[in-house]
Amino acid sequence: MRMTLGESVRMTLFGSSHGPEVGVVVEGIPAGLKVNASEVQAELDRRSPVGKSLATRRQEPDRLVWGDGIRDGVTLGGPLVAYVQNVDVRRGPYESLEDVPRPGHADFPARVRYGRSVDLSGGGIFSGRMTVGIVIAGALVKSWLSRAGVDAVAYVHRIGDVEAPEVGDDIPVERIRNLCSSHKIPCPHEPSALAMARLIAEIRREGDSVGGIVEARVEGLPVGAGEPFFDSLESVLAHGLFSIPAVKGVEFGAGFAAARMRGSEHNDPYGLVGETVRPLSNHAGGILGGLSTGLPLRFRVAIKPTSSIAREQQSISLSTKKPTRLVVKGRHDPCIVPRGVPVVEHLARFLIADMLRQGGFL
Amino acid sequence: MRMTLGESVRMTLFGSSHGPEVGVVVEGIPAGLKVNASEVQAELDRRSPVGKSLATRRQEPDRLVWGDGIRDGVTLGGPLVAYVQNVDVRRGPYESLEDVPRPGHADFPARVRYGRSVDLSGGGIFSGRMTVGIVIAGALVKSWLSRAGVDAVAYVHRIGDVEAPEVGDDIPVERIRNLCSSHKIPCPHEPSALAMARLIAEIRREGDSVGGIVEARVEGLPVGAGEPFFDSLESVLAHGLFSIPAVKGVEFGAGFAAARMRGSEHNDPYGLVGETVRPLSNHAGGILGGLSTGLPLRFRVAIKPTSSIAREQQSISLSTKKPTRLVVKGRHDPCIVPRGVPVVEHLARFLIADMLRQGGFL
Amino acid sequence: MRMTLGESVRMTLFGSSHGPEVGVVVEGIPAGLKVNASEVQAELDRRSPVGKSLATRRQEPDRLVWGDGIRDGVTLGGPLVAYVQNVDVRRGPYESLEDVPRPGHADFPARVRYGRSVDLSGGGIFSGRMTVGIVIAGALVKSWLSRAGVDAVAYVHRIGDVEAPEVGDDIPVERIRNLCSSHKIPCPHEPSALAMARLIAEIRREGDSVGGIVEARVEGLPVGAGEPFFDSLESVLAHGLFSIPAVKGVEFGAGFAAARMRGSEHNDPYGLVGETVRPLSNHAGGILGGLSTGLPLRFRVAIKPTSSIAREQQSISLSTKKPTRLVVKGRHDPCIVPRGVPVVEHLARFLIADMLRQGGFL
Amino acid sequence: MRMTLGESVRMTLFGSSHGPEVGVVVEGIPAGLKVNASEVQAELDRRSPVGKSLATRRQEPDRLVWGDGIRDGVTLGGPLVAYVQNVDVRRGPYESLEDVPRPGHADFPARVRYGRSVDLSGGGIFSGRMTVGIVIAGALVKSWLSRAGVDAVAYVHRIGDVEAPEVGDDIPVERIRNLCSSHKIPCPHEPSALAMARLIAEIRREGDSVGGIVEARVEGLPVGAGEPFFDSLESVLAHGLFSIPAVKGVEFGAGFAAARMRGSEHNDPYGLVGETVRPLSNHAGGILGGLSTGLPLRFRVAIKPTSSIAREQQSISLSTKKPTRLVVKGRHDPCIVPRGVPVVEHLARFLIADMLRQGGFL
Repeated sequence: MRMTLGESVRMTLFGSSHGPEVGVVVEGIPAGLKVNASEVQAELDRRSPVGKSLATRRQEPDRLVWGDGIRDGVTLGGPLVAYVQNVDVRRGPYESLEDVPRPGHADFPARVRYGRSVDLSGGGIFSGRMTVGIVIAGALVKSWLSRAGVDAVAYVHRIGDVEAPEVGDDIPVERIRNLCSSHKIPCPHEPSALAMARLIAEIRREGDSVGGIVEARVEGLPVGAGEPFFDSLESVLAHGLFSIPAVKGVEFGAGFAAARMRGSEHNDPYGLVGETVRPLSNHAGGILGGLSTGLPLRFRVAIKPTSSIAREQQSISLSTKKPTRLVVKGRHDPCIVPRGVPVVEHLARFLIADMLRQGGFL
Repeated sequence: MRMTLGESVRMTLFGSSHGPEVGVVVEGIPAGLKVNASEVQAELDRRSPVGKSLATRRQEPDRLVWGDGIRDGVTLGGPLVAYVQNVDVRRGPYESLEDVPRPGHADFPARVRYGRSVDLSGGGIFSGRMTVGIVIAGALVKSWLSRAGVDAVAYVHRIGDVEAPEVGDDIPVERIRNLCSSHKIPCPHEPSALAMARLIAEIRREGDSVGGIVEARVEGLPVGAGEPFFDSLESVLAHGLFSIPAVKGVEFGAGFAAARMRGSEHNDPYGLVGETVRPLSNHAGGILGGLSTGLPLRFRVAIKPTSSIAREQQSISLSTKKPTRLVVKGRHDPCIVPRGVPVVEHLARFLIADMLRQGGFL
Repeated sequence: MRMTLGESVRMTLFGSSHGPEVGVVVEGIPAGLKVNASEVQAELDRRSPVGKSLATRRQEPDRLVWGDGIRDGVTLGGPLVAYVQNVDVRRGPYESLEDVPRPGHADFPARVRYGRSVDLSGGGIFSGRMTVGIVIAGALVKSWLSRAGVDAVAYVHRIGDVEAPEVGDDIPVERIRNLCSSHKIPCPHEPSALAMARLIAEIRREGDSVGGIVEARVEGLPVGAGEPFFDSLESVLAHGLFSIPAVKGVEFGAGFAAARMRGSEHNDPYGLVGETVRPLSNHAGGILGGLSTGLPLRFRVAIKPTSSIAREQQSISLSTKKPTRLVVKGRHDPCIVPRGVPVVEHLARFLIADMLRQGGFL
Repeated sequence: MRMTLGESVRMTLFGSSHGPEVGVVVEGIPAGLKVNASEVQAELDRRSPVGKSLATRRQEPDRLVWGDGIRDGVTLGGPLVAYVQNVDVRRGPYESLEDVPRPGHADFPARVRYGRSVDLSGGGIFSGRMTVGIVIAGALVKSWLSRAGVDAVAYVHRIGDVEAPEVGDDIPVERIRNLCSSHKIPCPHEPSALAMARLIAEIRREGDSVGGIVEARVEGLPVGAGEPFFDSLESVLAHGLFSIPAVKGVEFGAGFAAARMRGSEHNDPYGLVGETVRPLSNHAGGILGGLSTGLPLRFRVAIKPTSSIAREQQSISLSTKKPTRLVVKGRHDPCIVPRGVPVVEHLARFLIADMLRQGGFL
C-alpha cells in the first residue's frame, strides 16, 4: 500500500469509501498562506454528482471538515488535515459482492491479495471516493501557485463518440474555466457539452456506462521545472494520474498522434515571444527532456467507462467457482468523466507545486 | 535530478552521452542469482543501431564492463555495477549548439535551468544513451523473474503510418519474441516489419525522422501485485516509461480506445481458465484497481519522431536572440522506435521485479 | 517538513500541540489483524502525566478516537487513522512567547525559518504532544509483532544522578514490564524507582527540571533483519529516536562505553544456545553489521531536562533585540523521562515492524 | 539493502571490500562547481592507514579514478562517479571464515540472512572500505558548502582511556584542522595525540584493538536548517553516522551528560552575538527542535574496538556446530578511530549539504 504522494510537498490519503470519512494530510505547505475554506469547498463541489439524471443518486454532500493546520484562514506551517464524512453509506448492496467479483473493479485482485478481511465495501481504498483528498490537496496549493503565476484547468475533451474541438494554445486557462462553468458538463465548447450531456442521459437509460478523455493545461510554469532522469515532469504527472481510479492512458502534447508524425512536423521551432525565447508551437505539450519549456503544459487522460453498470454481467463465485449472473445494485454514475475533471486538475496542481518546490522555483 | 528508480530493487544511472561511460548501479538483487554475461551483452546489442541504412552511423560497440557484484556468473548479494565506455564520441558537432537550442531537444530548458556549465554534448544526461543502464538493469533481473514464471517482451506496433495487426492475447511471450527475432525491425508481423523498414529507409533519405508505438506484454504475473493507492501498477510503470527520452504517451489495455467504449463492452467478465478464476477478456490490460489480475499485462508506449534531423530548422541564439537556421549534424537515427523496444521491455522487467519484491511475491 | 516515517510500514503524524487534535495515519498494516482498542488506549495512558506531584498539571485525558481502518476490532487493510482531541488548551500563556524565544525550545530557529505565521503555541509541531501518534502507531503493530514472537519494552535507566542497576540480558521483556508496572516511575528496580520519584518531586519544588536515560530492549528478532549499508538497524532506529523531542543521544549495546574497551573484551564470542548458534554475550546490543544477531536488541536514549522551567531565564526580544528576563508559565513536567518511556518503546516497535516487513520476515 | 543516502543530494555506494573497486555515484550537485581532484585525493588519503606501526599493513594506495560528471575541474550537472580500485586484495585469509563467523563482524547475521552466496570476503559490503565513497561524496560538496560559509571538521576525542580535553566553542574549525594536521593522530591536543599514538602501538603489540570517540563540529550553518518532525538534523545525521561500520553511539551537544543536568543548567540563554540573536552557550550542540540554531553543530560518535584481532577467539562452525578457536589473520588496524575521522567529517558535510539544499539554503 502507498497512500503518500510527493517529495517536497506530500499528501497522505486516509479513509475509505464506506468507512467513517475520506480525507488527507498535506505536508510541506508554508506558514502564512491564505486558504479560503469556501473556495476549497467549491472545488470539492465540482467533484460532486452533476445532476440527478447524469450521475449517481448517492447523496454526497461532502462538507469539508478542517482538522489542524489552519487558523483564521491562514496556514500555520504544520501538516494540514481535512476530510469529509461519509454520511450516506448503504453497506447492504455491496456485501454480497465479497465472494463474487464485479467485472472491471478491483474486487478480484484485491480479494486474492489481501484475503477476506480487506474492506472492499463501496470499493474500499480502491474507490473513486479517495480522490476527495486529492481535490482538497490541490485546492490547498492553488493560491500558492497563483502567487507564482501558475494556473491549471482541466475539462472534458471527449465522452464516448462525442469529441469537442481542439482548444487553441492561445486561449488562457481563465477563459477556458469560464467557458466550462456555464454547462453541466465541464467542456468549454457548448455544443459538445450539450451533446455529451445527452449521451450520458441516454447511456443511463440503457443501464450502461461510457468512458471519455479529460484534457488539462497548466500555464505560467517557469522554464526548467522537473527532475530528470527519472522524475521527468511527464513521469511525475503520469505517476499521479494513473493512480486515479479508471485512468488507463496518459499522453502529453501530441502524445499518441506523435507516432504518426515526422520530426520536421513535430519539432517545435524556437523564436521570440515578446522578449522571451520560447518554442513557437507546442507539440511537446510544454515539456522537453522532462523539463518545462515555459509553454502551457498540455496532457490528456483516458478514462474507462464506469465499471458498475445496471446490466447483468457474467462473474463467478470465488469460493464455489460457480458462474454467476451479477447485477450491481448500488448507485452509480453512468459516466465518471465530468467528476474526474477536478481530480485531474487538482492532482496536476499539487504535483506541479511539488516539482516547483523541489526545483527551488516556489 | 533523480538518477535512481525503484523501491525494493533500485537502479542508479550514471554517465552521460559524451562522457567517459554510461552505466548503472543495481541494488536489491539477492545473492546466488545466475547471470550470464553474454546474455546481458545480447540484450544490450538489441539496443544497438539496427543496420547502416536504418539507424545512426555512430559506432556504439557498447561492450559491457562489469564492476562489482558478480563472480563466476553468480551474484554476490551486494550492489551490481556495469557500464559501457563511450568510445566513438565526436564532440565537435555539438559544441556550436550550446547557444542555439535544437528543436525537440532538452537543450533549451536544460540551458535555462542549469546554466552554461551543464554538459549537453550529445544530450548529456538527457540522451537516449542513458537507457543503456536501464537495459542492463532489466537484463540482470531477467533470470530472477524467469524463476518466478514471469516473462516480458516488447515489440514495434506502429511506425508512422505502418501499423501492425493486433497480437492476440493467446500468443505467448516466447512466441512473440521468436517472431520478432527474424526481422530487422522487432515486429512479430513480417509484412509490417518489412514495410516499417522500407518507411524508415525512405525517411532517412528525406533527412527526416518518424515516430511510432511500442507495445509490451508481461506474462506470468501473480494476482494482486501493485501497491495502490499511489503506487498502482500503472503508476509505477508509467513513471518509469515516461523517463525514457521521446516517450509522450502510455496506455494500458484498451487505453485511449476505452474512452469510446461502453462499460458493458469494456468490463472483462470472470470465469474459469482451467481451475483458476480469471477475467475472460483483457480490456483492462491485466490491471484492475492498480493490481495485477493474472492475465498478461499489456501496454503501449508512444514515441515521438527523433528530434535530431538533417533538415534545416528554425531556432534562435539564446545570447543574441537572433533567429538562426539550424542544421543538426552529428549522426542520428531516423527512427528510434526499434531501439526503444528493448528499453521498454527491460524497464518493465525491472519495475515488475521491484513490485513483486515489494509485495513479497519474489 | 517531514511528518512521515517508515518504508514498508509508514506513519504520518498530523495535528499540533494546541490545534484541534494530534494523531496519525498508519499504512502497510495487513487486513485481518486484531486490534484491541482498550489496549491501545492503555498504551496511550502510559504516556499521560504520572501524578500531580510528578508531572504537568495540564489535563490530557487523551481519549483515542478511531477514524477509518478498523471494524469490529479487526484491521481492514486500508490506512488506519486515530487521534486524540486537544481538550485542555490554554493558549494564553504561550502567546507572549512569539517574540521572546524560550531557552531550550524550538521557538528561535522555528521563528527564524518559518516566520511569524508558524504556530508555535504549545510547541506546535515541535511539541512532545506529537508523540501521541507514535504511541498509537506502535500499539497498532504490537499484536502483529507478537504473532512473530517479537516483544519490546522500555524503562527508565537514569534520572539525574539516580541510576538503576543493569538489567541482566537473561531477564525477559515480559518480566521487565511487570517489574515496571508497579511503580510510579517505570523502572524495574524498585529502590531506584522510588529514589527517582523523590528526585522529581524535589526538582519540581525547585521550579527546575531534570534529564535522564531510557533503556529499551527488543527480543525475539530473527537473525539478519536490517538493510545495510545505509539502513542498518542502528541507523533506522536512531533516525526515529532522534525525532522524539528532547532526545540528544542514542547508543546501542555497550555504546559509548565501547570507546574504552579492547576488542578482546568487546567482541562477543559465538557458541550454541540450545541448538542455535548465537553470540554468547551482547556487547553488540543485538546488532552486527547493521543486522540483528538474534540476541535481544538493546539501546539507550539520552533525554535532556525539560526546557520549560518555572525559573526565570535570560532571553531576548527578536524584534527589539532587548534582553528580557523570561518566566515560562504554562504547565510543565519537571521530568519528561517517564513519559518518554512508552514513546521510545512504541517507536522501536513500529520501526522493527517496518524493518521485518522490508526484509520479508513479517 | 540500501546503498543510497540523501534526498536532494544523494550518494549511492558501490563495490565491496575485495571486489574490483569501491566507489560512489553522487547526484544533485549543480553544474559549474569547481572540484580540485588533488584535494579530493588528499581527503581520501586522510582515510588511509596512518603509519606502519599504528594501522593495517594492507597497502591501500586508493588512487581516485574519475568517471563521468567533471571536466576540466568543473562539475557538469550530471551524476558524478568516482572510485578507487582494490589493488592489494588477498582473498586467502578470509575464505576459511565462510563457515566460522568472526566475533564482532557481520559474518554471522549476513550468512544467515543471505546464504552462502553472499560475498563476505574482507567484509564485503559490510567493510569499512565502503566508506571510501562517503569520503569522496563529502569532499565533492566541500567547495559548495564553503561558498555558503559552512565548514566542518572531525577529530579524535578519545582512544581507550586517553581522553583529550574539551575543545572550546570559540575555536574555529580552521584552527582545529591545523592543530590536528601536525600529529599522526588527528587530535588537536598534542599531548593527547601522542598518548593516543603510544596506546595504539601498545595495543598492536598485544594483538588487541581499542575503541574511541570522534568529535565533530560544523560551523557557519544558517538558522533553521532541518526538516522536523522526522527529519530533524539529529535524525538525519545519526542515520548516516550509524551506517559507518563500528559506530555504536551518537550524541549531540551535551548528549548523555544532559541526563544528569538540570534544565536551568542545560538551557542555553539567548542574547546578542554582534548584531545577531544567538544562544549564548551551546549545550544543545547547535540544534533545537531538530533545526540549526546558528551556533556550531557539535556531536560525538562512539566507535567500538576493531573486531579483527590477532588474538585467538571463540567461535563455532555454522555447518557442524562445533566450537572452534579462531585466529583472524588478514591485516588489521588495532584502532580504526583515526581513520574514522575523515569519514565522520565528510558524511556530516554531505548530509548538511543535503539538508541545506532541501531547505532552500543552498
